[in-house]
Amino acid sequence: MGLAHVIALVGLLCMGLGLCMLLPMAVGLLYREPNWTAFLTGTLASCALGAGLWFSLRDTQAREMNHRQGMAVVALGWLAAAFLGGLPLYLSGDFLTYTDAFFEASSGFTTTGASVLTDVEKASHSVLFWRALTHWLGGMGFIVLSLAILPFVGVGGMQLYKAEVPSPTPDRLQPRIADTAGVLWKVYALLTGLEALLLMLGGMDWFDAVCHAFATLATGGFSNRNASIAAYGSAYIEWVVTVFMILAGMNFSLHFWLLKGRLRAWFKDEEARFYLALCTLASLAIALALFMAQGVGVHDSLRLAAFQVATIITTTGFATADYNQWLPFPVAVLVVLMFVGGSAGSTGGGPKVMRVLLVLKQSYYEFLRLVHPRLVAPMRFNGQGLDRQVVASIWSFLGLYLGCFVVVGLVLTALGSDLVTAFSASIACLGNIGPGLAEVGPAGNYAGLSALAKWILALAMIVGRLEIYTLLILLVPEFWRR
Amino acid sequence: MGLAHVIALVGLLCMGLGLCMLLPMAVGLLYREPNWTAFLTGTLASCALGAGLWFSLRDTQAREMNHRQGMAVVALGWLAAAFLGGLPLYLSGDFLTYTDAFFEASSGFTTTGASVLTDVEKASHSVLFWRALTHWLGGMGFIVLSLAILPFVGVGGMQLYKAEVPSPTPDRLQPRIADTAGVLWKVYALLTGLEALLLMLGGMDWFDAVCHAFATLATGGFSNRNASIAAYGSAYIEWVVTVFMILAGMNFSLHFWLLKGRLRAWFKDEEARFYLALCTLASLAIALALFMAQGVGVHDSLRLAAFQVATIITTTGFATADYNQWLPFPVAVLVVLMFVGGSAGSTGGGPKVMRVLLVLKQSYYEFLRLVHPRLVAPMRFNGQGLDRQVVASIWSFLGLYLGCFVVVGLVLTALGSDLVTAFSASIACLGNIGPGLAEVGPAGNYAGLSALAKWILALAMIVGRLEIYTLLILLVPEFWRR
Repeated sequence: MGLAHVIALVGLLCMGLGLCMLLPMAVGLLYREPNWTAFLTGTLASCALGAGLWFSLRDTQAREMNHRQGMAVVALGWLAAAFLGGLPLYLSGDFLTYTDAFFEASSGFTTTGASVLTDVEKASHSVLFWRALTHWLGGMGFIVLSLAILPFVGVGGMQLYKAEVPSPTPDRLQPRIADTAGVLWKVYALLTGLEALLLMLGGMDWFDAVCHAFATLATGGFSNRNASIAAYGSAYIEWVVTVFMILAGMNFSLHFWLLKGRLRAWFKDEEARFYLALCTLASLAIALALFMAQGVGVHDSLRLAAFQVATIITTTGFATADYNQWLPFPVAVLVVLMFVGGSAGSTGGGPKVMRVLLVLKQSYYEFLRLVHPRLVAPMRFNGQGLDRQVVASIWSFLGLYLGCFVVVGLVLTALGSDLVTAFSASIACLGNIGPGLAEVGPAGNYAGLSALAKWILALAMIVGRLEIYTLLILLVPEFWRR
Repeated sequence: MGLAHVIALVGLLCMGLGLCMLLPMAVGLLYREPNWTAFLTGTLASCALGAGLWFSLRDTQAREMNHRQGMAVVALGWLAAAFLGGLPLYLSGDFLTYTDAFFEASSGFTTTGASVLTDVEKASHSVLFWRALTHWLGGMGFIVLSLAILPFVGVGGMQLYKAEVPSPTPDRLQPRIADTAGVLWKVYALLTGLEALLLMLGGMDWFDAVCHAFATLATGGFSNRNASIAAYGSAYIEWVVTVFMILAGMNFSLHFWLLKGRLRAWFKDEEARFYLALCTLASLAIALALFMAQGVGVHDSLRLAAFQVATIITTTGFATADYNQWLPFPVAVLVVLMFVGGSAGSTGGGPKVMRVLLVLKQSYYEFLRLVHPRLVAPMRFNGQGLDRQVVASIWSFLGLYLGCFVVVGLVLTALGSDLVTAFSASIACLGNIGPGLAEVGPAGNYAGLSALAKWILALAMIVGRLEIYTLLILLVPEFWRR
């Protein structure tokens, strides 16, 4: 099975995407917005392109695809989704250029949440709904990529998750993708529904509740309000969103096992323990700083700190405070969290908690080795001994990740951004976070950047979402010849 | 041989240090400065303390020390040197507090070059000479640490340099330390003398020429002028310093082999090739930016760019331009170079070129492994296959290095520094560079920081200079029990 059939399968994804555009079209009709036709055009274009690719390129003799081909389908699917998903946004009239529309769609499907809209509240309902839906679909896609494909290809230490994923048919990919998807998407949908319900109980209307629930579970971050979650002025809503962001930043298999009755699943998992401890510690440190140095009250300090920590570490990107205005210490804590990211198997971006944890563990083991040179203690993770190859994959991933961060930041400074804007935009897009600092901080947006900078950042989002190697590998001719 | 004898040996180092203080005393007498007595007191105090430690704690039955004990002696020696070296600075009256004097001495011995003096030109000659001499002695110490001790203990990939060091007696440490020191210090002294001579030919007086040559070969960066090298207004001097900084940032064994007639030694070494290529590329990129965007002339652009690249990558810290005032792109290039540092076996600080190179290589190999899963190609460095343990040591080192960078930066923000000052001061001190950005940029200094911040940064310099693990290991009781 070669490139042709892979592209044919991407055609199938395009058709699916086209059908999904019928939902925002329905929203547009419901709210009697004239630009609902943009989504009809999107549906027709996507379905036509998809059908064209499928019927002209599919290989009816194709055997079942392997994991590497699965990876190619997903990677190309993301690119296609960003390009096609931007089409109705552009046609809707809410975006000035196709560059802006492509940026927004990439930001949506990669669950980044960086926006070029300067006034979200003027956008049509269909556009807002589509933005939220791109998040939700992107989150679904990433769960499958990270738990059903990457563990078998061995990208960046995801080998560790081979055995962890709930699936009754572990040896073949296509049933496995279907099973994993079926099981985990139920959890994903359940949590989304639950959050939407809780938000409505807090006084949010159904439309905003659904959109924000989509954006939360996908750790996306698009909001329907300019002031993001702060616009609702409700501590209850902020806490609900905080809790669901933290849930969305955890491995969805753990939620599955929890729902199956294994009540200690969360706490038996080393990554989850480290993640929850980190969220707690960082929130307390920031709350203390806000309380002591900025004179914020106790509950407000905790609420603001927990929300901002959750939104950054899970790479969601909602805001309830303009942390650009905070003192340096709490900002620095948030910046450090940008380089941690969500858990492996969550919808979160960034380098991932698991990788950061294993790096710290490895540095500690190296230290032990220097103290006791003859003691050969293999490093362990969740009770398993760690293969050196896995650790090497993780280090390489992080090396490449930091390399991409540096290159994107350098290019942005060459395009004229100041240092803080450039490097924070780089990590905010590569890590699928959304807001950075300075010009692209939580109170700003990406509208002021040049078109070239927007294309580069949109590409960085996709590179980051595809865990870098997944996209890189497509560029190697040898990958296709095998 | 236990802790007691190790401390006795540190006592010997203290006596040596005390004798070295006679040199700045002589300079003080030569220039008829009344505070020459500060250095006499320093000599007496150091020799008395050293002799006390040596005669009370030495173990006359002690066998030859092993590499681990050698490492302990060096690490404790550095701490002792910083504490004792600060004494005459404090007594000289040129520093307001012992904190300031300790900061300056730490900065000297670690070859950092960060200063708390707001007006260097008012300082006495003896103080200026002592500052330069602490650099030179620190540079000597680091050459021995990194080429005669660390390769045998296996810190951060230095295992790779076991075979590279010129020494006729490879199996026993004490003769080897002496041999390595003898051989490499000759090269070091030769280059220092040559630079001093060339600087004098450019019109610098003997005193400034010697001090700047000391500071260049040690990649230290203390200057006798407030405007650093820019004060001499001589393109010739700037180019001389640039060339010698680049030489000082290379593995001194390579210079040794070159002098022995192996003319291609530099170009056969992968690290040296990468380092020289990086210097060239970064200089051209910055020169282009200065020329295109800031309207600087061709020769001036090249001169400013090459100097600033050399001063940052080699972690020297001299200045001929206030790059704080440059456009973001050239500044960003310099910041990236701060995270590279000098070559292994040079006097330069930072994470080291070799480690960065191997990280990039490993990420590329991991990529190859994903493309050809069955191809097992062991990574090579300078023609040797790389043991996985070596690569793991390097990754762990870098993980710990970045961890220290983050922690020091966070603490500085908690003490009130802004983000750019805090994190640039963190890397500038941990990497033994000297100047950072913003408040601690090339035109500023560290005088404005709080006493606590100064102690933390002085400690960071020592931690960085001792390649982190060397200092950490002393804190483990088990290290001493073996």
